[in-house]
Amino acid sequence: MSGNSIGQNFVVTTFGESHGKALGCIIDGCPPGLELNEADMQRDLDRRRPGTSRYTTARREPDEVRVLSGIFEGKTTGTSIGLMIENTDQRSKDYSNIKDLFRPGHADYTYQQKYGLRDYRGGGRSSARETAMRVAAGAVAKKYLKQVHGIEINGYLSQLGPIKADTVDFSQIEQNAFFFPDESKLDELDEYMRKLIKSGDSIGAKVSVVATGVPVGLGEPVFDRLDAEIAHALMGINAVKGVEIGDGFGVVNQKGSEHRDLMSPEGFASNHAGGILGGISSGQPIVAHIAMKPTSSISIPGESMTAQGDVAEVVTKGRHDPCVGIRAVPIAEAMLAIVLMDHLLRHRAQNMDVNSQTPEIGMR
Amino acid sequence: MSGNSIGQNFVVTTFGESHGKALGCIIDGCPPGLELNEADMQRDLDRRRPGTSRYTTARREPDEVRVLSGIFEGKTTGTSIGLMIENTDQRSKDYSNIKDLFRPGHADYTYQQKYGLRDYRGGGRSSARETAMRVAAGAVAKKYLKQVHGIEINGYLSQLGPIKADTVDFSQIEQNAFFFPDESKLDELDEYMRKLIKSGDSIGAKVSVVATGVPVGLGEPVFDRLDAEIAHALMGINAVKGVEIGDGFGVVNQKGSEHRDLMSPEGFASNHAGGILGGISSGQPIVAHIAMKPTSSISIPGESMTAQGDVAEVVTKGRHDPCVGIRAVPIAEAMLAIVLMDHLLRHRAQNMDVNSQTPEIGMR
Amino acid sequence: MSGNSIGQNFVVTTFGESHGKALGCIIDGCPPGLELNEADMQRDLDRRRPGTSRYTTARREPDEVRVLSGIFEGKTTGTSIGLMIENTDQRSKDYSNIKDLFRPGHADYTYQQKYGLRDYRGGGRSSARETAMRVAAGAVAKKYLKQVHGIEINGYLSQLGPIKADTVDFSQIEQNAFFFPDESKLDELDEYMRKLIKSGDSIGAKVSVVATGVPVGLGEPVFDRLDAEIAHALMGINAVKGVEIGDGFGVVNQKGSEHRDLMSPEGFASNHAGGILGGISSGQPIVAHIAMKPTSSISIPGESMTAQGDVAEVVTKGRHDPCVGIRAVPIAEAMLAIVLMDHLLRHRAQNMDVNSQTPEIGMR
Amino acid sequence: MSGNSIGQNFVVTTFGESHGKALGCIIDGCPPGLELNEADMQRDLDRRRPGTSRYTTARREPDEVRVLSGIFEGKTTGTSIGLMIENTDQRSKDYSNIKDLFRPGHADYTYQQKYGLRDYRGGGRSSARETAMRVAAGAVAKKYLKQVHGIEINGYLSQLGPIKADTVDFSQIEQNAFFFPDESKLDELDEYMRKLIKSGDSIGAKVSVVATGVPVGLGEPVFDRLDAEIAHALMGINAVKGVEIGDGFGVVNQKGSEHRDLMSPEGFASNHAGGILGGISSGQPIVAHIAMKPTSSISIPGESMTAQGDVAEVVTKGRHDPCVGIRAVPIAEAMLAIVLMDHLLRHRAQNMDVNSQTPEIGMR
Repeated sequence: MSGNSIGQNFVVTTFGESHGKALGCIIDGCPPGLELNEADMQRDLDRRRPGTSRYTTARREPDEVRVLSGIFEGKTTGTSIGLMIENTDQRSKDYSNIKDLFRPGHADYTYQQKYGLRDYRGGGRSSARETAMRVAAGAVAKKYLKQVHGIEINGYLSQLGPIKADTVDFSQIEQNAFFFPDESKLDELDEYMRKLIKSGDSIGAKVSVVATGVPVGLGEPVFDRLDAEIAHALMGINAVKGVEIGDGFGVVNQKGSEHRDLMSPEGFASNHAGGILGGISSGQPIVAHIAMKPTSSISIPGESMTAQGDVAEVVTKGRHDPCVGIRAVPIAEAMLAIVLMDHLLRHRAQNMDVNSQTPEIGMR
Repeated sequence: MSGNSIGQNFVVTTFGESHGKALGCIIDGCPPGLELNEADMQRDLDRRRPGTSRYTTARREPDEVRVLSGIFEGKTTGTSIGLMIENTDQRSKDYSNIKDLFRPGHADYTYQQKYGLRDYRGGGRSSARETAMRVAAGAVAKKYLKQVHGIEINGYLSQLGPIKADTVDFSQIEQNAFFFPDESKLDELDEYMRKLIKSGDSIGAKVSVVATGVPVGLGEPVFDRLDAEIAHALMGINAVKGVEIGDGFGVVNQKGSEHRDLMSPEGFASNHAGGILGGISSGQPIVAHIAMKPTSSISIPGESMTAQGDVAEVVTKGRHDPCVGIRAVPIAEAMLAIVLMDHLLRHRAQNMDVNSQTPEIGMR
Repeated sequence: MSGNSIGQNFVVTTFGESHGKALGCIIDGCPPGLELNEADMQRDLDRRRPGTSRYTTARREPDEVRVLSGIFEGKTTGTSIGLMIENTDQRSKDYSNIKDLFRPGHADYTYQQKYGLRDYRGGGRSSARETAMRVAAGAVAKKYLKQVHGIEINGYLSQLGPIKADTVDFSQIEQNAFFFPDESKLDELDEYMRKLIKSGDSIGAKVSVVATGVPVGLGEPVFDRLDAEIAHALMGINAVKGVEIGDGFGVVNQKGSEHRDLMSPEGFASNHAGGILGGISSGQPIVAHIAMKPTSSISIPGESMTAQGDVAEVVTKGRHDPCVGIRAVPIAEAMLAIVLMDHLLRHRAQNMDVNSQTPEIGMR
Repeated sequence: MSGNSIGQNFVVTTFGESHGKALGCIIDGCPPGLELNEADMQRDLDRRRPGTSRYTTARREPDEVRVLSGIFEGKTTGTSIGLMIENTDQRSKDYSNIKDLFRPGHADYTYQQKYGLRDYRGGGRSSARETAMRVAAGAVAKKYLKQVHGIEINGYLSQLGPIKADTVDFSQIEQNAFFFPDESKLDELDEYMRKLIKSGDSIGAKVSVVATGVPVGLGEPVFDRLDAEIAHALMGINAVKGVEIGDGFGVVNQKGSEHRDLMSPEGFASNHAGGILGGISSGQPIVAHIAMKPTSSISIPGESMTAQGDVAEVVTKGRHDPCVGIRAVPIAEAMLAIVLMDHLLRHRAQNMDVNSQTPEIGMR
């Protein structure tokens, strides 16, 4: 396939450009009988939506999702679910200034080279606006996972530039505009962001996402290990440059005696592995982290070139996300949900039931 | 698919257990007309082979690959290539001691839970022995990439526990048993490893892999971005816990004005992006890093449990790899080669030629 | 995947129910740079549209297709193309009479059993209304095939009940409401259909489809042979019960000396094979035939049962297609176009160019 | 994928040429815990094996299958199953006479054009010898289907040239060398074949295959309908030119009132549909028929051409199958088994269990 689909048994395919008529997706493989409506998706769409705080872009998009098929009398029918969000903020803006310009750090140059032409309006297909559909599809997966299997997925911003969360209080995450789990750092974050916005620059971030209640057994050796599939899904989010499972790059300087999670009939003694052993979920919480690069759309001038091969200077006007990591939280949750959903169905295909034959050990 | 295949147009499917009769793979989609023989694969197999230095496991396997189909009169025919390596070190060892034991940090518990039964001899399918076939398949991709497109792929050990390479001298990599690019640290490494082996413990590592000569345009937005696919392939290697592209987790505390790679008609001014923009190769070198956990097979006792739910103590006898990161170097190269090969073919499917329509900028 | 997609490199995924809000599809993998607009698709949609003659259903649907993404400034961009047709004839009809009824010959019973619930309005997802999106996607493939490779695809009704076309005059096909290539039988057809409609019954048909200008070399041995893929695509059309390539079932009583198509430097002497040898296109016209069953929606009462297990009688009211074979002509063309397009791209992935190394022989 | 794989959840990938070192396949997705050994596959391999009667080719191949992985202590482990058959009848025959010759009716010309080179020994990859691995893989599917679900699959030769089976007595099929279900025609068949062999010609045939015990609900609308998938699998067998489900081409002249299978709480009144409605199995026996062309390898001279473009005459020496339809019986069974197995697993992925929610009706 040409890359706009993800999954094998729960397949999400998206379309849509930043400034095109609409964004849309098809979910193929959702089990029948799930109670589902637009509000189930709208909640996460609203969390991702731009323009909700002073720290994000000012673009105004209501991002209202419409269900076009696959749901009947309030329940999924097992057939393909069509979703659509119309682009309303499609001002007939003048894009002639960026038409032939390759903005550094953006996909302008690579799209132009790959395809020979491109929709340059707002980045076209390469815009993170496309992720709205992933969030909608992820919400379907989240609902199924929670309702049928008790699996919950929560993401948060674990670091913004130099500011790290020292504690992770899940109850805090939805209480602030940063999805930040450490209340004590909120003032610091606010001050940092104000200065950053003033300077016209942007900043990187680290986002973490945790799934609890995942049964033992999900993941398909050898190439489609659960961790490999999570890495695929998370690295596929715009601006992500790194993915970690469990201790991640911390393992480089760990010894085997430190890293391995000891087991007893009461459960695992630790979770350095991040809930995955041999590519298969262990029943412990699945923990993943991603590194988000700072957006390249900044008002500080930068050297670039045009499609004609001339030197050019790039300055981005208007208010862009100074830290794309913030709005990436619901996207990361959605991608993890889609992967878990797909692997739940894949596991079910080959194995009679998710409940395995030997007793599961307790989870600490 | 159930996970033993990777790729869409260049598809590699593997089989085989650590102590089964043989390992094998099928390569489907290799273009016809490539000159190929067993020696092309044997070189990389020998680089991965155990027992070549004092720093790796003592298992004796010649790992001789046999081509069973798909090559005729010295050239690939375009049909599926069957490869096989017979397991010769299949001593009828007594495995009764680990039959019902879940070794911590291993996949014993998760395989047992997923499948309800498992081949416990040497880890069965979860053993890194399976990666021999990936190396063989990767060698086919490497040869094609180099011969037809001038693409070269080189991996190295960039860090072993606390010891980092300060310089990267590619000419050094094949001169030492560590695939280490910094000659000045070899004595330190030797000393560290001797102490480690004596202590019965193991250590993590960081492996880096670089592809040069990659044309602009490889990678399929939006889910099958080149970086997402590389992350999938590298995270799918046994013991990998993290993947980075370019600056990786370093971006978390970078500003946009630092990170974005400025461009001019002479080329990019830097390569923070690691050769990928918007999920598409930029023509710069592709740079990826992986974190390898320390092997859990150590001679230091650890608490565990049995399949029957009893407490047990695990001590691994015999000589295992104290740092699995070392032998992972050719595996990482192979996986990157397979991904690039697959995306070269995928790109070719949709686009008339890899040579794109606007002139490529120079590469620094 | 769960079945709503077709193709590997040119992938078409559809959604939509007969009486839902909209039908839609995503085309993933269309090469960039193809001039394309809605009118290109509308022509074939109008050929398939109901209500254009007295011989088809009276349902009124304008079937106006909207392009939502993937086309910019009149050309395809290489990204996913989103298409949508709103259902306008969605009268809030009373369906309570068929809600619990399993109409014989329809998918009511099997959908109910498979999914446990179903959208019973007009057959929901099992309705042939879904094929509108295939026709739209097929039109994209047709345009590319014709413009870039000179491949043309033409279908026709070769038999309706007892009435066979004795001659195949391609110029006649679009001149009558039957897509019938034998002008001399039109009166007979008209008379037959009038009687049939009066009787309340329906009739089967045979549809033929021919592709000319197909280059040698399309098709992937061994499972995805071109004939196997065509069979998959054509048998996947609603109501199809048989597929033939070339002489089809006529070969059962042929001898080898009759069947094999002799060759000379001037070309093939005959085309019993239907343009495919060993699963690969031979450069001759590709010829396929399908058998369409008579629709089960007739006004003659038939014994059936309810979801509750009670005996019931079914009588279909309103005007349904008395011969679904007629409107199947553009659908069969679309499916053949999608398969050829996909295999053109698949071939291109593995082989440098479609123009093969030895000179093609002439085509008779 | 490049065509050597079939299936989505039960995936079979094959390799091997007619006169190469070995044939092999990988089965990915077989559920764990199935008791399986080589004898389970050998039975069907022996049914397909050449040289067992005077009516088939004289090539001597024991076709002994070896299991290389995926089975441990007599049971499948859920990991990939590697199978291999070594080619023993690999005489270093002189093939120089056919090296540059395009035999009419064979794939010589199309392979040469597609790939630019080919393994010309015995047809290479295009030889029906490849189907041995399908039979081995099909035997695994058959065992699972029968043991776990009570599904049985039986094929037979329903017509050989002009001689049709008037009755279908399943107990007769394995009693004669033709897999013919009508004992009264055996003498006629013997006489026909003796004359045919003497004349040096070959003859077409029709093979039928029936699956009983298939639960309601298998098949994925809209493109991967069960009938579409069966058509794909059966048309992918060498020499097949047509596929029918149920009444097949007989429907062309049927009326709706004749064709539709009436239902009552006691079951269906007939099975014109061949066990599939709307692309989903109905619980009735699945019935498919295929048309097999006469082999083109005959000793009657035929006009052809060389790779150099010269006129040539082709005469096939040695004893070839005068009716390839005979040995196709176990192959057709295998392909149907693989499709049903795959769809059983696909169904299971999306639906909690195969036992559907409303009571199944009885089967007549």
